[in-house]
Amino acid sequence: MTNTPLADLLAFQKDTEALGQVAGRLGWDQETVMPRGAAEQRAEEMAAMEQVLHARRTDPRVGDWLAACEGSEMTEADTAKLRHIRRSFDRASKLPAALSAEIARVTSVAQGQWAEARAKDDFAAFAPVLARVIELRQQEAQALSQGGDLYDALADDYEPGATAAELGAMFDEMRPRLVELRGKVLEKPAPAGLKGSFPDAEQMAFASRLALAFGYDLNRGRIDKAVHPFSSGSGNDVRITTRTNPEDPFNCFYSTIHEVGHACYEQNIDQGYLLTSLGQGVSMGVHESQSRIYENQLGRSRAFTGWIYEQMREAFGDIGVDSPEAFYAAVNRVQKDFIRTEADELQYNLHIMLRFDLERALISGDLKAADLEAAWNERFEADFGYAVPRASLGCLQDVHWSLGLFGYFPTYSLGNVYAGCLAQAMRKDLPDLDAALAKGETSSATSWLGEKVQRHGGLYEPKEVITRACGEAPSAGPLLDYIETKFSDLYGL
Amino acid sequence: MTNTPLADLLAFQKDTEALGQVAGRLGWDQETVMPRGAAEQRAEEMAAMEQVLHARRTDPRVGDWLAACEGSEMTEADTAKLRHIRRSFDRASKLPAALSAEIARVTSVAQGQWAEARAKDDFAAFAPVLARVIELRQQEAQALSQGGDLYDALADDYEPGATAAELGAMFDEMRPRLVELRGKVLEKPAPAGLKGSFPDAEQMAFASRLALAFGYDLNRGRIDKAVHPFSSGSGNDVRITTRTNPEDPFNCFYSTIHEVGHACYEQNIDQGYLLTSLGQGVSMGVHESQSRIYENQLGRSRAFTGWIYEQMREAFGDIGVDSPEAFYAAVNRVQKDFIRTEADELQYNLHIMLRFDLERALISGDLKAADLEAAWNERFEADFGYAVPRASLGCLQDVHWSLGLFGYFPTYSLGNVYAGCLAQAMRKDLPDLDAALAKGETSSATSWLGEKVQRHGGLYEPKEVITRACGEAPSAGPLLDYIETKFSDLYGL
Repeated sequence: MTNTPLADLLAFQKDTEALGQVAGRLGWDQETVMPRGAAEQRAEEMAAMEQVLHARRTDPRVGDWLAACEGSEMTEADTAKLRHIRRSFDRASKLPAALSAEIARVTSVAQGQWAEARAKDDFAAFAPVLARVIELRQQEAQALSQGGDLYDALADDYEPGATAAELGAMFDEMRPRLVELRGKVLEKPAPAGLKGSFPDAEQMAFASRLALAFGYDLNRGRIDKAVHPFSSGSGNDVRITTRTNPEDPFNCFYSTIHEVGHACYEQNIDQGYLLTSLGQGVSMGVHESQSRIYENQLGRSRAFTGWIYEQMREAFGDIGVDSPEAFYAAVNRVQKDFIRTEADELQYNLHIMLRFDLERALISGDLKAADLEAAWNERFEADFGYAVPRASLGCLQDVHWSLGLFGYFPTYSLGNVYAGCLAQAMRKDLPDLDAALAKGETSSATSWLGEKVQRHGGLYEPKEVITRACGEAPSAGPLLDYIETKFSDLYGL
Repeated sequence: MTNTPLADLLAFQKDTEALGQVAGRLGWDQETVMPRGAAEQRAEEMAAMEQVLHARRTDPRVGDWLAACEGSEMTEADTAKLRHIRRSFDRASKLPAALSAEIARVTSVAQGQWAEARAKDDFAAFAPVLARVIELRQQEAQALSQGGDLYDALADDYEPGATAAELGAMFDEMRPRLVELRGKVLEKPAPAGLKGSFPDAEQMAFASRLALAFGYDLNRGRIDKAVHPFSSGSGNDVRITTRTNPEDPFNCFYSTIHEVGHACYEQNIDQGYLLTSLGQGVSMGVHESQSRIYENQLGRSRAFTGWIYEQMREAFGDIGVDSPEAFYAAVNRVQKDFIRTEADELQYNLHIMLRFDLERALISGDLKAADLEAAWNERFEADFGYAVPRASLGCLQDVHWSLGLFGYFPTYSLGNVYAGCLAQAMRKDLPDLDAALAKGETSSATSWLGEKVQRHGGLYEPKEVITRACGEAPSAGPLLDYIETKFSDLYGL
């Protein structure tokens, strides 16, 4: 063969990407259609796939090919492809195989113990295995950081370039304004919620209509039910799941719109990047910016909820609220609650800041695993104004830490911040947006996002793609202004 | 590591088996739930998986490990495991990678051209690519056979140990008796078929009941709709598909029972063989013996159809026949037809013999691809007594040859022959079988098959597992006796 090192590397990477898609598809299968009795066998299958992928990511030829072509003249896209491959190769190569295997083993056990502890509201039963997970992730961070900040080394896997210092500064700006606003809002009476009959099958049918309204391509995707809503896959096979709750159709509808935001990002990436290292959303933060802007700035806007209101009355009859304005208030209702995943736009980021500060302290060693529950409860009361009654509503509510996902939580808020910046820029470019949304038409907005963000896939670094889309570097200001304006208006402040 | 070569080899093989299951799961996904627009991407994903599997099957370490442990003292099961690994390694190692890649490429094209030619009834449009497929498979057979019979080398992949000479002798015994019987039966008036309303959803519900009646474990499997019924996967994740035709519920019901036979074979293999080279059905012929005995000797028996008759009348009301005996005749109706997959028990094997003789001639070079249609039509008229009106009802009806599957067809008849032997032996051991079947109870039969055949997986060679189960070597006699008795009785001969 007389291929260039670049051609060899990209051909090799194409198969790695294809195998990564296969592993992702197994995950989808597991959460949607897999028979229950297949769980153990599936774990073996997944482990075998992970071994194949790990061997490819650390294949010494990748290092040789990279060394042979880095620095040469090449296209912008090829340069970006190499950047991703280099990052993945360096991360994977720095990690001792025994450590990775031990983390996989311990987090698998920890996830089971977490589920049991949560069911029994017994944090003490979870603390020892959590301590072990933290210890292993500290070791991983040491191997990766080579003297740098441990937390940054972990966060970099989810949000390349993110640092605890920068995230901390961002949260310091957000926290007082959000705490103040939530205090004022919760003094006001809560608006009424929906009442009516919302059968499962009709919720799913309505969710499909919403997905189509946001441009989700069902010829390259599908919608199934699962316990937890998620989006899975890249390119031309991007599937989403949702769930139904007969009492609360918003749970289904807004989960669907959220996952459609993730899925459309993947579906709208330039087809030329298919099965390359650019063929996926560039980071968790940018991914979340798409799901959040679909769900919140578009889906929960006064204009679009007016359209949903009419559609829901047609589909479900009497829904217990009798005006578009009352419906808009119900969609955006702020309530005292404990659970991050059910939080409204105003309170959501307070949940993240709490986790960010606690997990930084856990990784640095300033906070012991055994002391997590007390620290959580104290901080929660300070930010939310009321006490956590039990661990399942507090520090045991999320699966993330049992899986070792330290450094992941802040990407949710980063996504909100990016969505705030993008929404501000988009509204400047699209003065007639609300008139379209009021008719259920999202295409001007989704085309704008497709053009400015989604099509680029991994071409630009996270912050760069947002900066290019908005014409200025991202900051928390636009999101905070948007939240303050929206909720002051809704609650008559 | 201080593992023995045997331990290393078996550990390596476990991952290979797990990855093989993953590839199989992708195939299931493609035929059931995959979005249409994902087809091209999926082809890349499958190709990447195949490359991984091929590299593992031909990994030089496998050869070294085999050489280091073959001949040593070891358990019967480990000896059998090594036999399978050795066969796979030798086959894969003899094939030039370029030839395998070319076969994959050409058969992918050929399958498309076959579908188009079939839709247009235009054999001439398919002949050139068929000639190319044959040429490549001849080359493959030459590489594999190293001077031996070409057809045997191909058939060995589906039915280890099978030879054209032995299969030919078996068919020579079967053909005159079956041709004579079909002549007599078709002179008699055909029994009435079903009439009624058989909505899709109710067919699927009834099919699930049938699957459960035959012992299919839905905790380790699932039933979906697909264009072609199939069974997929091994061990604890064995899924089947079926299809519905509102006019013909038997199509759905007997396809389901057939696939349940395949699936139960896989589900009932000793759990100790999971993800080893013994953890799958040992050959296509033995597999087909299980699907056929479930479908025919059990499912189409007078006793069991009596039970189905009552169940169908409860589920569907008036079904157009009004006695168990008329229902039994409808289930086993013999008609003039052209399509193998819709053939009754009497005519099915005639379809196979025709294909067996033609494909042997194609591989030996005695028959040119361009002359296939004429040869098919001539032979069909000789065996069936009437002419083929168009190629889609003749030599273009099956996908197999476009895929290069030469040597596969005879395993269907071999399965029938094995089923005939097993049924005879089973009835000797279970004198009360019909009384149980008449109540819809199959467990004595399925337990007998589980114990005698299914649990062994790949432990014994195909012929050996049948011989052990029956107490004598397999032969066509029991099947022919069964068919002659059954249809003489049904048609009053």
